[in-house]
Amino acid sequence: MPFSRISSDLIGSENATRLAALQEDYEFLGRKLARRGLSIDRIKERVKAFTVAIPSWGVGAGGTRFARFPLAGEPRSVWEKLEDCSVVQDLGRNTPCISIHFPWDWTDDLKGLRQAAVQLGLHFGPVNSNTFQDRPGADLSYKYGSLTHTDRHVQEQAIAHNRACIEGGVALGSKALTVWIGDGTNFPGQQDFTASFDRYLESAEKIYAALPGDWTLLIEHKLYEPAFYSTVIQDWGTSYIAATHLGDRAKCLVDLGHHAPTVNIEMIVARLARFGKLGGFHFNDSKYGDDDLDAGSIDPFRLFLIFNELVEADLRGSGVASLEHMIDQSHNVTDPIESLLLSAEAIAGAYARALIVDRDTLHGAQAGNDVVMAREQLRTAYETPMGPVLAMARYECGGAIDPVAVFRASGYREDRARDRPAGGGATSAGIV
Amino acid sequence: MPFSRISSDLIGSENATRLAALQEDYEFLGRKLARRGLSIDRIKERVKAFTVAIPSWGVGAGGTRFARFPLAGEPRSVWEKLEDCSVVQDLGRNTPCISIHFPWDWTDDLKGLRQAAVQLGLHFGPVNSNTFQDRPGADLSYKYGSLTHTDRHVQEQAIAHNRACIEGGVALGSKALTVWIGDGTNFPGQQDFTASFDRYLESAEKIYAALPGDWTLLIEHKLYEPAFYSTVIQDWGTSYIAATHLGDRAKCLVDLGHHAPTVNIEMIVARLARFGKLGGFHFNDSKYGDDDLDAGSIDPFRLFLIFNELVEADLRGSGVASLEHMIDQSHNVTDPIESLLLSAEAIAGAYARALIVDRDTLHGAQAGNDVVMAREQLRTAYETPMGPVLAMARYECGGAIDPVAVFRASGYREDRARDRPAGGGATSAGIV
Amino acid sequence: MPFSRISSDLIGSENATRLAALQEDYEFLGRKLARRGLSIDRIKERVKAFTVAIPSWGVGAGGTRFARFPLAGEPRSVWEKLEDCSVVQDLGRNTPCISIHFPWDWTDDLKGLRQAAVQLGLHFGPVNSNTFQDRPGADLSYKYGSLTHTDRHVQEQAIAHNRACIEGGVALGSKALTVWIGDGTNFPGQQDFTASFDRYLESAEKIYAALPGDWTLLIEHKLYEPAFYSTVIQDWGTSYIAATHLGDRAKCLVDLGHHAPTVNIEMIVARLARFGKLGGFHFNDSKYGDDDLDAGSIDPFRLFLIFNELVEADLRGSGVASLEHMIDQSHNVTDPIESLLLSAEAIAGAYARALIVDRDTLHGAQAGNDVVMAREQLRTAYETPMGPVLAMARYECGGAIDPVAVFRASGYREDRARDRPAGGGATSAGIV
Amino acid sequence: MPFSRISSDLIGSENATRLAALQEDYEFLGRKLARRGLSIDRIKERVKAFTVAIPSWGVGAGGTRFARFPLAGEPRSVWEKLEDCSVVQDLGRNTPCISIHFPWDWTDDLKGLRQAAVQLGLHFGPVNSNTFQDRPGADLSYKYGSLTHTDRHVQEQAIAHNRACIEGGVALGSKALTVWIGDGTNFPGQQDFTASFDRYLESAEKIYAALPGDWTLLIEHKLYEPAFYSTVIQDWGTSYIAATHLGDRAKCLVDLGHHAPTVNIEMIVARLARFGKLGGFHFNDSKYGDDDLDAGSIDPFRLFLIFNELVEADLRGSGVASLEHMIDQSHNVTDPIESLLLSAEAIAGAYARALIVDRDTLHGAQAGNDVVMAREQLRTAYETPMGPVLAMARYECGGAIDPVAVFRASGYREDRARDRPAGGGATSAGIV
Repeated sequence: MPFSRISSDLIGSENATRLAALQEDYEFLGRKLARRGLSIDRIKERVKAFTVAIPSWGVGAGGTRFARFPLAGEPRSVWEKLEDCSVVQDLGRNTPCISIHFPWDWTDDLKGLRQAAVQLGLHFGPVNSNTFQDRPGADLSYKYGSLTHTDRHVQEQAIAHNRACIEGGVALGSKALTVWIGDGTNFPGQQDFTASFDRYLESAEKIYAALPGDWTLLIEHKLYEPAFYSTVIQDWGTSYIAATHLGDRAKCLVDLGHHAPTVNIEMIVARLARFGKLGGFHFNDSKYGDDDLDAGSIDPFRLFLIFNELVEADLRGSGVASLEHMIDQSHNVTDPIESLLLSAEAIAGAYARALIVDRDTLHGAQAGNDVVMAREQLRTAYETPMGPVLAMARYECGGAIDPVAVFRASGYREDRARDRPAGGGATSAGIV
Repeated sequence: MPFSRISSDLIGSENATRLAALQEDYEFLGRKLARRGLSIDRIKERVKAFTVAIPSWGVGAGGTRFARFPLAGEPRSVWEKLEDCSVVQDLGRNTPCISIHFPWDWTDDLKGLRQAAVQLGLHFGPVNSNTFQDRPGADLSYKYGSLTHTDRHVQEQAIAHNRACIEGGVALGSKALTVWIGDGTNFPGQQDFTASFDRYLESAEKIYAALPGDWTLLIEHKLYEPAFYSTVIQDWGTSYIAATHLGDRAKCLVDLGHHAPTVNIEMIVARLARFGKLGGFHFNDSKYGDDDLDAGSIDPFRLFLIFNELVEADLRGSGVASLEHMIDQSHNVTDPIESLLLSAEAIAGAYARALIVDRDTLHGAQAGNDVVMAREQLRTAYETPMGPVLAMARYECGGAIDPVAVFRASGYREDRARDRPAGGGATSAGIV
Repeated sequence: MPFSRISSDLIGSENATRLAALQEDYEFLGRKLARRGLSIDRIKERVKAFTVAIPSWGVGAGGTRFARFPLAGEPRSVWEKLEDCSVVQDLGRNTPCISIHFPWDWTDDLKGLRQAAVQLGLHFGPVNSNTFQDRPGADLSYKYGSLTHTDRHVQEQAIAHNRACIEGGVALGSKALTVWIGDGTNFPGQQDFTASFDRYLESAEKIYAALPGDWTLLIEHKLYEPAFYSTVIQDWGTSYIAATHLGDRAKCLVDLGHHAPTVNIEMIVARLARFGKLGGFHFNDSKYGDDDLDAGSIDPFRLFLIFNELVEADLRGSGVASLEHMIDQSHNVTDPIESLLLSAEAIAGAYARALIVDRDTLHGAQAGNDVVMAREQLRTAYETPMGPVLAMARYECGGAIDPVAVFRASGYREDRARDRPAGGGATSAGIV
Repeated sequence: MPFSRISSDLIGSENATRLAALQEDYEFLGRKLARRGLSIDRIKERVKAFTVAIPSWGVGAGGTRFARFPLAGEPRSVWEKLEDCSVVQDLGRNTPCISIHFPWDWTDDLKGLRQAAVQLGLHFGPVNSNTFQDRPGADLSYKYGSLTHTDRHVQEQAIAHNRACIEGGVALGSKALTVWIGDGTNFPGQQDFTASFDRYLESAEKIYAALPGDWTLLIEHKLYEPAFYSTVIQDWGTSYIAATHLGDRAKCLVDLGHHAPTVNIEMIVARLARFGKLGGFHFNDSKYGDDDLDAGSIDPFRLFLIFNELVEADLRGSGVASLEHMIDQSHNVTDPIESLLLSAEAIAGAYARALIVDRDTLHGAQAGNDVVMAREQLRTAYETPMGPVLAMARYECGGAIDPVAVFRASGYREDRARDRPAGGGATSAGIV
């Protein structure tokens, strides 16, 4: 399949108009960082090494239970999703990894899919299983649960699906399986909380047993939705118990929108990292519930504080270097490619800011309970505009200094609106 | 169209097995109430006079953005919805009114629909317009708003739809239009809050102008969803300003799930009643967001406290006797008919309990700041089991003493599963 | 010290006026329960065996950071607190246990205190340590933490205080130490989340090591307040990790007001019970934060659902029979004795209702995913008025059929207002 | 009274070490802003014109219901508070206004107080009344309410106090009265919501009638605390109704911490501005409830979004130029002077960022529903570090380039710790 791509000529010519300003900004920032004893080039190299995966469904338009408003030119198959993902990577240069979803992305030609990805400079990250929806023609329904269903046959169908996901993932070169289930209840009394969780552990054990030795099982908790009274894996405490029960290769995945209102998420990150159970993230932002808005768009300081914990954990040797970072958003009113570009930038920016915190001063102020000095270290780093570092990293890697501008200049979406006429599907896009 | 109905013979024979126990319970309760100076028969008559409307879409299975699990035998047309609604009314006897939704329930034969309803002992309540979804083939999209859209043509399309709803409602004998819009934004900056609301007022004025003189316009606010950063009619304050701006026949509708966490809803009810702007309710229950669970299933005390305010407002002469009471739930894991029967009972039960509060003692304790005595008046009423009054009211009106038991005994759902094969639609069911 | 008590003559004469009605209600309820296969007498015996502890500070008037409005006749010493606690017990008969607080209740004559309690039919439950306030004259301040302070000397002072609490508790016959710390931060960056928790574990180990072999250490978590950005023991996940780290005799204590908004507390109860870490409760009710209102006054159904989990856990053999149940409320606008009487009744009532759930039918409906039948089992039990069982249990144990009425008739508070003139203190009452 | 002040020599010498770097940063930022068509000098002048008032109690250490940890050198009288306020103003140069609180700040020499303020370059802003605490020796208690009390005598005492505040304010040159009451309830049934609010309106009318013609009455709403079930002025809707009822000079005051979780505060600001009822702010930040943390310390983006609305309202001519801006924080773990300096800077910084939003591009993107472009306008402005503008404004006005550094270098707090020995009071500090 011939993929449409943004031409590197266009990227080059667009960059040419922005390079001088970027260099000026980069140099100025470099001098400021140098005053604080920091090498901007070293920060830039760490930023270059940082990547975040894109979920295959993220390139389609999302929706709510009320409506989904399609976007002209949306991808209609996993191949077209791959095509869009490559555009994000070509422009932004920090999203080389795709997180795939079965059965939405199922194809008989996984080998070909993998080759196509390689051709586009992409590879596959964690595989996502789906037992929160019924597959057309499936024998048994997940209406009342999947891995925790009271009927052992439904449990087994769900386990088998997860095993199939692992097999598919092996074919694609993945190394992790993310398991999010919607299992839970809408009414007090509907299920026995304890028996449900025990069934979860039994089912999860069987999936874990099928995991290749170099794979990780990522357990994703969520407070509510689609279940509105109770959820089996409702919070990090339950997720932690499950991961501990299963074994070393089971970890907890933190989605930023899956917590109760006002909960301190960065502290949960610190706890999981401390006890060896932090596995990765689903990045997004939210104001009310699991809103799945673009990362950093609602509470950018919170995103920074999470990366602050990751940098701290890294210093402590908590092994968080190998976390699975993924974007998980629902793009209801924006072009998904633009949202992904900006979100990946926001995430990398939060990381870059966390890198420049003066940790010696911070730790000294913490030790001495100089509260004002301690918090000022974070604020100073947070308020430092790291855009020039991100842009220079992109530029040096062949990406666009201003990715959204180049994307718009490319006419990519308009072209796809022509060669991807509606009616072809996209029914699986836009949720989770 | 010949409608399937629960036979009155079945109701009669089922009631026969339960009547003696009911009478015993009713008499015992009557004695207890008499000791408090209350006449159980008078309470029963007020309960008989209380009704709550059923939304046409409520008889279909609901869903979430993740999945909708259909129910065998779901209604596939407005006629079949009518049929199911009549079952609820025949068994429960306090839901004679149907709230219809356009365009979901559109039919060219509104006159026939109205006649069919009359034949079933039903009539039509508030009409619900829908500008939160695009209609297939519509000229303009509501992706970025409807009544508040920046493009005047979209606004006009939305206004025209509301006018058509009024016309349809007139044909059906309705007397009110409920307007809920999903308009809002997902990101800071996406829209100008003030300009959006000004456009709302302009559009609403045009709808209001089209309202027959004996109609009411019900404005429904909601904090979030489908918009996840801001919503134009986000709370009762904005709803109140809009209703005040429009005129006397504009009122505020309170959906129990449309508020921020921890908000005191009964106080909002009291405020709106005090200032003449309470128009009605969308009853349901929720734990997290707009969960749309069955009324009284999560926080039954809250439901009681709302009716306590209504009874107080009634005593004060606030004209709340003519409120539009409606159930608005999403039945994701239950049979909708059973959920509606139980919800209508829970709502009537909350009303019945509010009726037996010893208001003289309550008001005396309030005046004297005897906090314990005041709250004990509410608790005593709340803990009084009013089930016998509800059941006797149903029985005397020809309904079932135990509606769910009779429904199950009737085999109605199994019969519909046979004569309403899937594939016929139901696509419009289950949301809002 | 001669203690003032409610005369048993008064209780007897007041009961005499209510006994006939109670017997009628009890018999009627007995027949209803018998129809469901339940023996009311057996339920009554279980209710009699159920007790809940009263915190010594709970008999004083509480307050907020804005104000505390004293109550005439408040207790001014631990002896007067004991006196008030005995009134609650004499009238209600299910609160024989007092939970004491050091240093607020410190006295040089612990032996005498214990003897006085025995004389009044009371004994001592869990001891509460206090490292969230500075003691006048203390060497070191807890302003920046106690068990987690960065300064080892402050940690040691806090550890020593906990050890002293254990010693005091041993003298009083207690068997548990409840540790709640306010340690946390107000600003991002103020402390290192991980280092703080590691310091907690170190300190807690030292306290645990000082625990007698038949004692339990109860760890109480809280989301926020007095720390407003992060709290070291912020949720049940962290509490669980700490309790697991420490050993078998370390358990988690659940205060109903210490969770994030919307969190499903009964599920946390189920998780902790399942994994052997549920240690007890601080009962109260709340709408917003840690409001510390009277148990069952805001969301009585939630209280019932918690007891439903306890009964389930008990059936499962989770060893929850020996939980430490305690009331922990702030009585800001009521007479503390009345609030305690009603709260203890609400708690026992929730337990009584949980006992009459038809668990066979419930479990069958759960197994078959008959959602409506399952939830109806809980609703039916919840709506059964168990007041007659509670009152009969009290009556048979020598208490009052209507405790608040007898308390008011006794003139106890008015008498105390005379013999406990203000100015004598009560400064330690009314918080936590 | 001779006031201790930071010497201008110290400010000058400290500034000298930072001026070159500031000039470099200022020039660089100036070039960047110029590229966007903005004059940095003009922005600086607007920043210079912006001020925010300091509450007199804010210079004392705050606390919670659990504890207050005093700070050595806290002010013990209104004179010493004035002294501390002048330090904040001398260093930061944007807080010339003090908001006073009666009775906490009462003195027989109001004339002298005003003269002292003038001598220090300060003046008095809105007066705050206090009817949420009992004054020692007061005839009647506010335990059950003040302006809404059921007893007319208590209402009148509270009204009289507000009138006395106005008189005191007139003597001090104030032009506004801020009324926040804690009136509300802890239990369902405790009070009649409607009657309470009607009493509020009656009382407020009497206060409004006593207002000089050039004064404003600021009504401050709050969801909860100290009342934990209901609050009379619970949200902006009720505040709006009250302000509308009273008249043109009654306005609504928005405290950032007084809303339900997840509520969109900037939208409330927009609504009040649109309908002429926005009167001013109490700035602070919070994560859970009314945490009263330093402005911008928890969610700095939200603070920016509020100022974005103010700038929009200003463009629209909504008369928001004359808003009463005030800091209202509880400084529990920091030096109040440092917190106030940083908070005033954060607030001015949010304003400065809002000033540089490219509003033409923003409005164009909004009109065209170019969501990404619209939100990028806000993000670009928000991420622009405006510190150099703030610092240059301070420098040019005689303040410190780095206020906290100069404050620390001055030894002011250590000196006060010596000449303000504890025991002298400060009992009124640290709340609200």
